[in-house]
Amino acid sequence: MTDSSHSLAYLHDEEHGIRVPVTMIALEDSPGAVPNPPLTVYRTAGPGSDPLQGLQPVRTSWIEARGDTEAYDGRERNLHDDGRAALRRGVASAEWQGAKRRPRRALPGRTVTQMHYARAGIVTPEMRFVALRENCDVELVRSELAAGRAIIPNNINHPESEPMIIGKAFLVKINANIGNSAVTSSIAEEVDKLQWATRWGADTVMDLSTGDDIHTTREWIIRNSPVPIGTVPIYQALEKVDGDASRLTWEIFRDTVIEQCEQGVDYMTIHAGVLLRYVPLTADRVTGIVSRGGSIMAGWCLAHHRENFLYTHFDELCEIFAQYDVAFSLGDGLRPGSTADANDAAQFAELDTLAELTKRAWAYDVQVMVEGPGHVPLHLVRENVERQQELCDGAPFYTLGPLVTDVAPGYDHITSAIGATEIARYGTAMLCYVTPKEHLGLPNKDDVKTGVITYKIAAHAADLAKGHPGANERDDALSKARFEFRWRDQFALALDPVTAEQFHDETLPAEPAKTAHFCSMCGPKFCSMRISQDIRDRFGDMSEQERIVGMREKSAAFRDSGGTVYLELPSVREQASRP
Amino acid sequence: MTDSSHSLAYLHDEEHGIRVPVTMIALEDSPGAVPNPPLTVYRTAGPGSDPLQGLQPVRTSWIEARGDTEAYDGRERNLHDDGRAALRRGVASAEWQGAKRRPRRALPGRTVTQMHYARAGIVTPEMRFVALRENCDVELVRSELAAGRAIIPNNINHPESEPMIIGKAFLVKINANIGNSAVTSSIAEEVDKLQWATRWGADTVMDLSTGDDIHTTREWIIRNSPVPIGTVPIYQALEKVDGDASRLTWEIFRDTVIEQCEQGVDYMTIHAGVLLRYVPLTADRVTGIVSRGGSIMAGWCLAHHRENFLYTHFDELCEIFAQYDVAFSLGDGLRPGSTADANDAAQFAELDTLAELTKRAWAYDVQVMVEGPGHVPLHLVRENVERQQELCDGAPFYTLGPLVTDVAPGYDHITSAIGATEIARYGTAMLCYVTPKEHLGLPNKDDVKTGVITYKIAAHAADLAKGHPGANERDDALSKARFEFRWRDQFALALDPVTAEQFHDETLPAEPAKTAHFCSMCGPKFCSMRISQDIRDRFGDMSEQERIVGMREKSAAFRDSGGTVYLELPSVREQASRP
Repeated sequence: MTDSSHSLAYLHDEEHGIRVPVTMIALEDSPGAVPNPPLTVYRTAGPGSDPLQGLQPVRTSWIEARGDTEAYDGRERNLHDDGRAALRRGVASAEWQGAKRRPRRALPGRTVTQMHYARAGIVTPEMRFVALRENCDVELVRSELAAGRAIIPNNINHPESEPMIIGKAFLVKINANIGNSAVTSSIAEEVDKLQWATRWGADTVMDLSTGDDIHTTREWIIRNSPVPIGTVPIYQALEKVDGDASRLTWEIFRDTVIEQCEQGVDYMTIHAGVLLRYVPLTADRVTGIVSRGGSIMAGWCLAHHRENFLYTHFDELCEIFAQYDVAFSLGDGLRPGSTADANDAAQFAELDTLAELTKRAWAYDVQVMVEGPGHVPLHLVRENVERQQELCDGAPFYTLGPLVTDVAPGYDHITSAIGATEIARYGTAMLCYVTPKEHLGLPNKDDVKTGVITYKIAAHAADLAKGHPGANERDDALSKARFEFRWRDQFALALDPVTAEQFHDETLPAEPAKTAHFCSMCGPKFCSMRISQDIRDRFGDMSEQERIVGMREKSAAFRDSGGTVYLELPSVREQASRP
Repeated sequence: MTDSSHSLAYLHDEEHGIRVPVTMIALEDSPGAVPNPPLTVYRTAGPGSDPLQGLQPVRTSWIEARGDTEAYDGRERNLHDDGRAALRRGVASAEWQGAKRRPRRALPGRTVTQMHYARAGIVTPEMRFVALRENCDVELVRSELAAGRAIIPNNINHPESEPMIIGKAFLVKINANIGNSAVTSSIAEEVDKLQWATRWGADTVMDLSTGDDIHTTREWIIRNSPVPIGTVPIYQALEKVDGDASRLTWEIFRDTVIEQCEQGVDYMTIHAGVLLRYVPLTADRVTGIVSRGGSIMAGWCLAHHRENFLYTHFDELCEIFAQYDVAFSLGDGLRPGSTADANDAAQFAELDTLAELTKRAWAYDVQVMVEGPGHVPLHLVRENVERQQELCDGAPFYTLGPLVTDVAPGYDHITSAIGATEIARYGTAMLCYVTPKEHLGLPNKDDVKTGVITYKIAAHAADLAKGHPGANERDDALSKARFEFRWRDQFALALDPVTAEQFHDETLPAEPAKTAHFCSMCGPKFCSMRISQDIRDRFGDMSEQERIVGMREKSAAFRDSGGTVYLELPSVREQASRP
């Protein structure tokens, strides 16, 4: 029922032949048969795909038209790429079934990043798509990209993705993590999780697979993803050295990065800020190093007493990323893992290095965002984003929560949504979701949905707090529907229409209850919304002075009619959920 | 298993014969057989009661020893008190089974409020109990009470309750709403919900019954409640006039208030700030008046074109409350019901009147708290509490959330916890919970628990942000347990140990997994916590200079040993939930 009021529609830029999918929510009439225009909302779900076939590449013609790339014979696929289990089996499993394309890269000497075009004053179709999607001027998009204050992660080898922008001048975005597990999920399940996450509103998805068939799982995910895909390549690299961090080398890492660039990964977490000299700063912490990538690199640094190879080879990474338009997500490997460790010397030392690396990447016109914590008590949250924005010259901040208390495992989507709203309000551009299973186990499909919806709330609440243009439209439409007892519209406008309708139906399941002018909280005999409508009917069109006079005149008539405070209907009367 | 690590213990003030129940959480040893002292935490559950018998009255001797009260023959119980259904049946049902006591009131000319004693420089056992409970100096308790910046709601006719304090100098408190419904619950179910809510941490409970057997249900709840009970007496008064607000009178209301004073209600929501002239201010709102009490009084004002009788008879209410030590909860009948209506003229006009009423109550030495919104976007939240604190001279603020966005019905515990944490951080003393069913239906037992835990998170996060002394002890203990892989201690220290353990067991149910030095996020082969412990073992006792030297010396040995980055254990390897 709810779904029937949602439909796929398009915003058009006829001049440039661009169309942006949106979700159109049809609304019922207000009382008096006053029509309500449909509300169109941002849509991350894409057009939908058959997992076996993947999505149509929507950006290929844009990429080819620029004439600055070439298709080439990519790196040979290697059984090693799918991890130890594939090696044991001696055969790769579940190879990608859909269309195969040769990878593209920049022509020699060319840079193909959106930052590069923006700095050159070129307005790309990707920028126009984003401007339409964000309902803003395309020059805002171009100028923010040029300044490094926003990124459009879209590897030229992921032409299926719909351009989206991450930057504090735009809508706050959210990321959902998925990834395979040798024990609990198959490739098909991961594609299903991807589609599930984007259905509920994930703006990007990170594939954090560490299990079997890493390469192949990623291929299936990217080919089906309408949103940018991020990864942490050190996880796969570690798999290639049989899980022994001390055996990692730049060469193995570099090969892994190229493998993923050719597949179409749009942004990669790179823990290049975990410097050898910072490692001892974590010794007195309550929870040491909690980032997997951070501890891998710390382990490597300690084992060799050498500087982090991601730092020493950073310029080479920039050169690679510039050829594919892969964005950096500079990992905060030393982020605090408990509120006690927040904003400490280790965390802020690493941030200084991330700021340095941001500017080094910008010198190559490579797009950058910077990752942030973690666990931070509420009064210390704002400092994190303000410090990052200042040191990194406004490069987009991408934070994990932060969790504002450590005492609620099982509810860390909530402890972190509180911190996430606060940090987004002051300028964080993208929020990495946290699910109820954080610290305890692997998120299942329900957890993915709960995490996504919770983070949509945080992101949207921050948009409202920032006064983002138009952000309040959905709130106002929903509240108006609530006031007018348009129950179906309330469900349709909710971030999660299914749950809203289900909760309503637990108490009043009958179909007439969805058009009734009351709800189960007060019941039909008394309704606070109803009296408010009476007040409006009476005073709505009056001036202040008229209202004073009008009140006096109309009170008698109101009393005589018994008012509408008392509605005698033959039905249940029930408890209030609040005063 | 988890419950076995929780036990009831007592804090003692031997000198004054006072003991305060607390929950003691036993902890396992840290590695190396280093013992961890048990952690004692604030306990709202009381000693537990047989619903048929009720709790032992713990405060009777304190009350009697003051010699300023008398027992008397209370108001006659009336079939009308139990509502229309009882009248139709012609017989009251399920009369209270336990001990019956004659009500007490102040001797003529005496005032028996904690504020009165505090202002006279008298330190009561109630104040000592609270000081022990809050781990603070009793003079802080007395002086905050005397200044009106805190209240101890404890009607002398509810001697079963354990004193607790609401004020911004103390721990942030939370309230849970329960209340009967003619359709869905019995008296026994409401007592069960009460015990359930206090088990999970509700500091006070409001009985918002509007259904049948209002009087009797309340009796059962109060007799079994170790926490203060609040009500909204206008709900019962409305029942007595058959649901017709225009037939309400001061006399009917007054009779209802005395009935509830004699039963032992500790605080009452009084919507005395909904003045006739404010009603038209709501006409242009998106959602008008959403408070039930507010709309009842607005309806009455309009029907009679007279000033709100709660306002005109406010002094008489003060005189009554002073005889029983009932606290005002000054209702915000004009609170915003949508983010669009936040901080508007109607809301702030009413607040001006609530400030006036606060001071009028204080003139009678009657304790007061002031209710607040509602729906407020995040950037407007702080203004609410700062304005209330300034206008009301620091009287405790008691807010419903606020919800920071309207778009997520089904998740309003979360949308409101974000606002609640923000408003508590800046001085709100008590938070009224919101459950996932808000706006949609009646909360069931699961919803009550979710609401309570979510609000414990908000209150605790605010305590941390305020730097409340000792607030971080539980966080630090839990994080330390997490770092040391003491899984059972992590569960025991969690706000909801049951859910934490259950989530963990979904992935790794076997008993050995609870002592294993890894978890399901990274699995046994790689563990970021483990490498952190290695860093601490190596550098923990060193100075800065020693660390630099030490790193160099120890790196070779570390590399030779293969480090502990690589732990070859025969088990599953699984996906990470985050980078």
